[in-house]
Parts: sequence; C-alpha cells; structure tokens
Amino acid sequence: MGRIELLPGPKLMLIVIDGVGDRPSRKLGFKTPLEAARKPNMDRMAREGCVGWHYPLSPGVAAGSGIAHMALFGYGESECPGRGVFEALGAGIELKEGDVAARINFATCDEMEVIVDRRAGRDGRYLDDLAKEIEEKLAENPFGVRIEVKHTTQHRGVIVVRGWKGECEVRDTDPGREGFKPILPKGKREIDRLIRFIHRKARKVMKESEWNKKREKEGINPANCLLIRGVGKYFPVEPFEERMGLRGAAIADNPLYLGVARFLGMKAFWVEDEEKVEKALELLGKYDFVFVHFKKTDNASHDGDCEKKRREIEKIDKLLKPLLELEDVALAITGDHATPCELKEHSGDPVPVLFWGKNVPKDDVEGFGEREVRRGWVGEIRGVDVLPMLINLAGRMKEVGK
Amino acid sequence: MGRIELLPGPKLMLIVIDGVGDRPSRKLGFKTPLEAARKPNMDRMAREGCVGWHYPLSPGVAAGSGIAHMALFGYGESECPGRGVFEALGAGIELKEGDVAARINFATCDEMEVIVDRRAGRDGRYLDDLAKEIEEKLAENPFGVRIEVKHTTQHRGVIVVRGWKGECEVRDTDPGREGFKPILPKGKREIDRLIRFIHRKARKVMKESEWNKKREKEGINPANCLLIRGVGKYFPVEPFEERMGLRGAAIADNPLYLGVARFLGMKAFWVEDEEKVEKALELLGKYDFVFVHFKKTDNASHDGDCEKKRREIEKIDKLLKPLLELEDVALAITGDHATPCELKEHSGDPVPVLFWGKNVPKDDVEGFGEREVRRGWVGEIRGVDVLPMLINLAGRMKEVGK
Repeated sequence: MGRIELLPGPKLMLIVIDGVGDRPSRKLGFKTPLEAARKPNMDRMAREGCVGWHYPLSPGVAAGSGIAHMALFGYGESECPGRGVFEALGAGIELKEGDVAARINFATCDEMEVIVDRRAGRDGRYLDDLAKEIEEKLAENPFGVRIEVKHTTQHRGVIVVRGWKGECEVRDTDPGREGFKPILPKGKREIDRLIRFIHRKARKVMKESEWNKKREKEGINPANCLLIRGVGKYFPVEPFEERMGLRGAAIADNPLYLGVARFLGMKAFWVEDEEKVEKALELLGKYDFVFVHFKKTDNASHDGDCEKKRREIEKIDKLLKPLLELEDVALAITGDHATPCELKEHSGDPVPVLFWGKNVPKDDVEGFGEREVRRGWVGEIRGVDVLPMLINLAGRMKEVGK
Repeated sequence: MGRIELLPGPKLMLIVIDGVGDRPSRKLGFKTPLEAARKPNMDRMAREGCVGWHYPLSPGVAAGSGIAHMALFGYGESECPGRGVFEALGAGIELKEGDVAARINFATCDEMEVIVDRRAGRDGRYLDDLAKEIEEKLAENPFGVRIEVKHTTQHRGVIVVRGWKGECEVRDTDPGREGFKPILPKGKREIDRLIRFIHRKARKVMKESEWNKKREKEGINPANCLLIRGVGKYFPVEPFEERMGLRGAAIADNPLYLGVARFLGMKAFWVEDEEKVEKALELLGKYDFVFVHFKKTDNASHDGDCEKKRREIEKIDKLLKPLLELEDVALAITGDHATPCELKEHSGDPVPVLFWGKNVPKDDVEGFGEREVRRGWVGEIRGVDVLPMLINLAGRMKEVGK
C-alpha cells in the first residue's frame, strides 16, 4: 500500500462487527444471521448509503483476526508481527524493537503433564500473584534477557522477552485440546532452548506455588502449567497516521484489537459495548478517524449459535442508533472476516460492507445482508480497500499522480 | 501463493470442462453453449451449491491451457516452464533439471520446403519408426547432448534434449499455417544452432526415409519435415501436495493436462471420457483431491461449432450424474478459460464456476451459466483462487495468522 493523501471533509468511522459474515442457516429459514436480524438502523444506513462486499485477504483464504484488522487498516500480511505482539500491546505493555511477546494460557495438567483443562477453569483468582512468582524465578536465566510475565483476563496472560537477539519462529506449545501434553520445541536453536527453559521453570514454580493451594482450596483448577502461543517479535511499521493521513483512535473490549491499533500508533481505549458509541462521539471531536470494535458476534459464531449471533447483531444495531444523527461523518460497517456458525471457524467467504454518511452516494440496495449487497455500488473489494473506499465515498480521496 | 493448511473434512474434486466459457451466440438464441445446454445434473448442483466466475489470469488476458491449469492448481506464471515440458511429461517421458523439451508436428512440405500440410494427414502410421530413425541420426551432434525423438498421437510428438547447459528461449519453427516455410532462428546462440541442426538433420532423414515411401504408397502425406513448438526447460517447483496440502491425482485424455499434473507431482491417469467418473470415484478412496479433465468442448470451440459445444456439455453432464450420490466430497466445476466459438480462440472472458457438496453453502442461483453466476455467492475470483475457495467452502481452510 502506498500512502494516501486526503482532502478536507467529514470525519470517518470504521465499525467492525467481528466475524459478522456467515452462510445461510436452515435454523434461520436459509437466511444468514445478518439477513435474519431485525436491524432497522443498519438497514436505514444501507438504504441511505451504499454497499458491497470484501474478501479480507483473497477469496477463500480464512484470515485470523489480527491479520484481518491489519488489512482493514491498510497493512499487508508481511507487516504483521506474531499475534503475541498485538496481545502484549493490547494488555498495555510497551514494546521496543527486538522484544519478543507471546500469549499464555494458565492451564491445568495432571502428574504426567497431560493437559486436563487448557483454561484452568477460566478463573483468574491469584494469577496476578502467580505470574509475579514465575517472573521472579525467570529473572535468573542463561540467555541474559529480562523475561516479564503478566496475567491479563481470566486464564490469559502475556509473556515478554526483552531485547531478544536471535530469530523467534517457533510453534505454539499449546496442543490446542485437552488430553495431550504441551508440545515443546526439540531443536537446538536459542529460541527452542528459551521456550523449553520457560516451560520447565514455570512448571516447577506453579507446581509448588502456595497460590495454587489457595485455588484448590476454593475449588478451582490449579494453574500448574503455561501454554505458550503466537510467539512474535515486535518491529515498528509506518504509523497509521502517516500511511492513511488520519489521526486515529480505537475502541474495543479485547486486547487483540487494542493491540493492533497501538501497533499502528493509534490511541486505544478499552470500553464496554454499551458505552462504545458515546465514547466514539466524544473521540470524533479530537480525532479524524475512530475505529469501533464489537466482539460478541464472533464468539456466538465460534459456539455455532446462529440465533445468538442474530441477537447480538440486533443488540449492536440498537447501540448504533445515535450515529444516525451525525451530520459531518462518513462511516463503514463491516466484519473483519466471516465466521459461519456451521463451521464454527473463520472462513474465506465474502464479508458484506456498508458505507453511510456525508457525501456517500445512495445505491438501490434497501438492506444490509450477504445477498443484498451483491447489487451494491461498491461491488467486490478486498480488506485493504475498505478504508480507501470510505475515504473516497466521503469525498476525501486526493487524486494520485495529478 | 503461500502454502495452505487444511482442516479435516470432505475430499475434494476439481472438474475442468476445457474452454467451457463462451459468449452469447445468435445460433443459440443469444444464449451461450453452457446456458443453452440441457444439463440437469450441473443445474441441480448449482441449485444445491453456490456459484461465481473467475478470470484465469487477469481480466481480458487469454490464457493458454497449460498456464490456465497451473493457475487452477495454485501456481503463478513464473512457475510455468515452456509447454514442451508439459507435453513431454504427459507423454510419459521423465525429465530432470536442465532437460529441454519441445512439441513437434510431423508435417508435409514441398521441394521448396514450403509447408503444405502442418499435420501430415493427421495420420500416425510408421511415425514411431521414423522418430527412431531421426533419433539415431541425431545421436552424433556437435553439442555433446543426447537428443530423444518420440512420436505420441496422430501427427504429434515430443523432442527432448538431455542436460542442456545454456538458455533455451527460442521461437517456434512452426509458421502456424500452410503456405509458409518453417521459421528457423537466425542467431548465433547455442540454442539457435541446435534448432537449426535438428531441423536440417531431421529434414534430411525424413526426405530419404523408407517409412515415408510406405506412407505415400498407402496414400497418405509423407512426414518429411519437423515443426518445433513450445521449447521449454524443465525445472522443479514446489509439489502440489506441499503447497495445497492435498495428495492429488489427475484424470485426462490428453498429454498436456497429464503433463501439468505430473509436473506438480500428482499421479496422472489417461482415461477416456466414459470411464472418467468411475475412475475418479475409485481414486477418491486413496487421494485427498482428484482432478478430472474433459477436452471435447474446447475442440468444438476451436472449430467454431457452438451447437456441437452445447452437445458436448450435455454429454459431460450425463457422465457427471453419479457424483450427485457422493456424501463426503466437495467439488468445483469450471473451465480453464473461455473459448468463444465466434472467435475460435481462447479469450480473456470470465469463466463460470460452480461449487457443490459437503458443507458448501447454497445461494439463490438455480442454474449454471455465464449470466446466472453473476448473482452467486462467490462473486469474481481469479484462476488461482478456485482451489482455495473450494477448500474454504468445504470448511477445510485453516485460519491464516491465528
């Protein structure tokens, strides 16, 4: 992507309904959750604005949420660090060039080190203290690096290795399901040794920790094993403000999306669903561009619950109502990828996108759904095209090569 | 293209109806052959599955069959060797890195070496023996290489130069129509000298050969001249199994398509139209992916016979009927490119594509034709997207950047 230059004009908003794209479901009368949802506000926007659909990366390719959001902000796959970097930034940890970050699960294993609960009861009690204890024991290490361990939400955490010199391409130790042991790298590389060192040291600390005795007394699974996922090295990329010419702010309630925004130099705010639109309206006073993320639709998709997904879409629609009052704003509403409820996984299906607001042209489409958008003004685009299209429809795209 | 990782799920099939894409014909009441054909099986698949269209390379670019199939298998233009390589592999000749291969026509020329029949009566009689005779005379050559000459079908053959050191970029000697002399390269490069050497030596042998006297006695045109086409050097590419994560087998009745499949490391089987589906069902037991190729539609297109093309589509549709019984398979049906009967040549027009089977979502389109697919779920993709899209619709695409 080259840099984009902007003309003056309305402020811009991007609203992502995570995993909103879906397939027709028998349970919904062969409609998709978006088609089936009662969503008068989005439908009005579709009626007053214009629509199309996007493939997040390329047709058929299922995108992870990090990479898919990077595309929506105008960044390619080669500009994406490992997911741990986003998660660490999203947890409020600052990273410098060369720092390595990974997500961790506090998990429960048995005597043979077979995982019996990948999420240690989804319970975060005493895990702040346990993380500190592990961190202390990792301070002395043969790699000459500082290792930080932080508990974030529920069973989740982040581990950061400061100033790592070598490569860091390494598989997750998380076997992905219960009944298996953690998968330790077998190689002789520094990173393989580091992962083994962290795993064993942490295991020893966790097995003996007083905090776990407290957990067991309270009837919750001990967190006696770390599962390491998405190891990635931080590197700086061209900031969003330079690439897109927009001073941006982000609103979400999940570390990953806040982390992506911070990685690109945006200000990022943790806000619950009910307050997101109000916060967005406030931030529009100060920023050129506000990104708002809604997560619950994707969770319902991963659970395979298309009716719940429809209800979550309806809730979001209600929350968006105040946006219809805006006069000097243009916005896009879309998903980062499709998560068909029947697959319970991200897919490479097309994702509907809607544009509305100041200067945005009106097409003949009267509602917002996977099939309705096929007759829309915008036609088929890619994830990286969504923001340039919004800038364009808002009348703010400056001619290239003039 | 990066590598694709797969989730478990249904086995996959790709059915290519060569050159199936076309334009509306006056003779067919302004329908295309595919639109006009009575094809209840494909229409049922379209009704139960979903559709779209693809541009083989990019919009407007007419693809050769080799390059178009390479795209369908997920390979770019830069990964395609000259066509002779595919033809040689398809004829069952093994190639090593550095081997050069070309297609040859056994042709008929007059005393002045003007081509009077580019295909020597399309008659293969005694050409096996004649090829051997030419090969013997080429054994002694000033290039220090082994040259192999093989007759394949009708007037066609293959020539292979083993262990060629230099470049091999060179024009076809085939003038492409009768009434012209073969076009010999004029340069001083080794490859220019080699082509001239082969041409002259072969011409001398063929002019004097007893096998041609037999042909003339039997009233068929002598094969007294070689036309050399599609010179290419073999090089290995990443095997299909590694790139797409699928163990593949191919079924066709033409060397080119078998050659492309072998070039990518697939097992390839020569099977006549009537037995193709039965063979495919057998191979599905052993392979993850089966490719089935039908050629006759393209032949009818090159003859400009849209009614014949329609009939060939109808015949293929009948042959596909047993596929409707499959329960744990997802398939795509498409063409490698369009060959509009009015042009009698490959074109860069859009090519309809149909997806059907396990997990594949149903869209609102009720039949399979150039115009009907425009309302389909899949929209516009490229040749290289067809297989990722099939993998995705079958619910087997693993998330990228998880």
